Amino acid sequence: MFNIVLFNPQIPPNTGNIGRLCVNAGAKLHIVKPIGFDISEKAVKRAGLDYWDKLDLTVWESTDEFLKHVDTSRCFFATTKTDKPYFEVEYKPGDYIIFGSETKGIDENILRQNFDNCITIPMTKEGRSLNLAVSTGIILYEAIRQNFKGSL
Amino acid sequence: MFNIVLFNPQIPPNTGNIGRLCVNAGAKLHIVKPIGFDISEKAVKRAGLDYWDKLDLTVWESTDEFLKHVDTSRCFFATTKTDKPYFEVEYKPGDYIIFGSETKGIDENILRQNFDNCITIPMTKEGRSLNLAVSTGIILYEAIRQNFKGSL
Repeated sequence: MFNIVLFNPQIPPNTGNIGRLCVNAGAKLHIVKPIGFDISEKAVKRAGLDYWDKLDLTVWESTDEFLKHVDTSRCFFATTKTDKPYFEVEYKPGDYIIFGSETKGIDENILRQNFDNCITIPMTKEGRSLNLAVSTGIILYEAIRQNFKGSL
Repeated sequence: MFNIVLFNPQIPPNTGNIGRLCVNAGAKLHIVKPIGFDISEKAVKRAGLDYWDKLDLTVWESTDEFLKHVDTSRCFFATTKTDKPYFEVEYKPGDYIIFGSETKGIDENILRQNFDNCITIPMTKEGRSLNLAVSTGIILYEAIRQNFKGSL
């Protein structure tokens, strides 16, 4: 099982869609405060359809608290500020795949401290960023593909 | 360059997000009528941000017209009605990756006629389906990963 971590998400339908993704992909979701909305807000549940109740969810009070409690050598930080494609990492079950807020990404200090574990989704020059839920699906399913044993 | 094909999309923000994805991934988008909204509708542009103008887009009048004009041996049909994982296909530049509407998926006759080219995203038993834009990102980036030459 993989762990998806959202630092400070801002847009309810993205978090809802990522919850739906996690239920479908057998992943655990971590939401790290502060967040830009009420986590019980209708929009989250609406975007997540009837999946939210089935979600394996942990809410953390801060990025510091989260990073203190996990093995950061198995944390991978999605950012546009590295050239390393996400598919050049070998993922293992239990790994944490971390995404920043839709507006600001992951704090630069955290990226610097974990630069070897920063990963990016290659994009064209015309592009600048992908939707957060789409990005999460792309990287999570690469981790699943690498570890696939015939079913989820 | 890959081709993303949406048969009869119904939900404007999904199509908008897929437009954004295609611009960022260097893919061409094909939208096949009938569709559930006005293609110039504000919601599409809003979800696609400022990407819609940069999109390489073709609109087809019907699935029949589309299928008559392309090499169906290089068309891959995303559906929950097969067991073949999408990552067991070897994609080549120019391939068409096809998605049905959010409500109905791809017509069963078309799936039957192209069963060897049907692909699916493995999901848990708790899951039933992923958001259309998330699904598109997952399969498109697997095709990109297989063919990656250092940049997009």
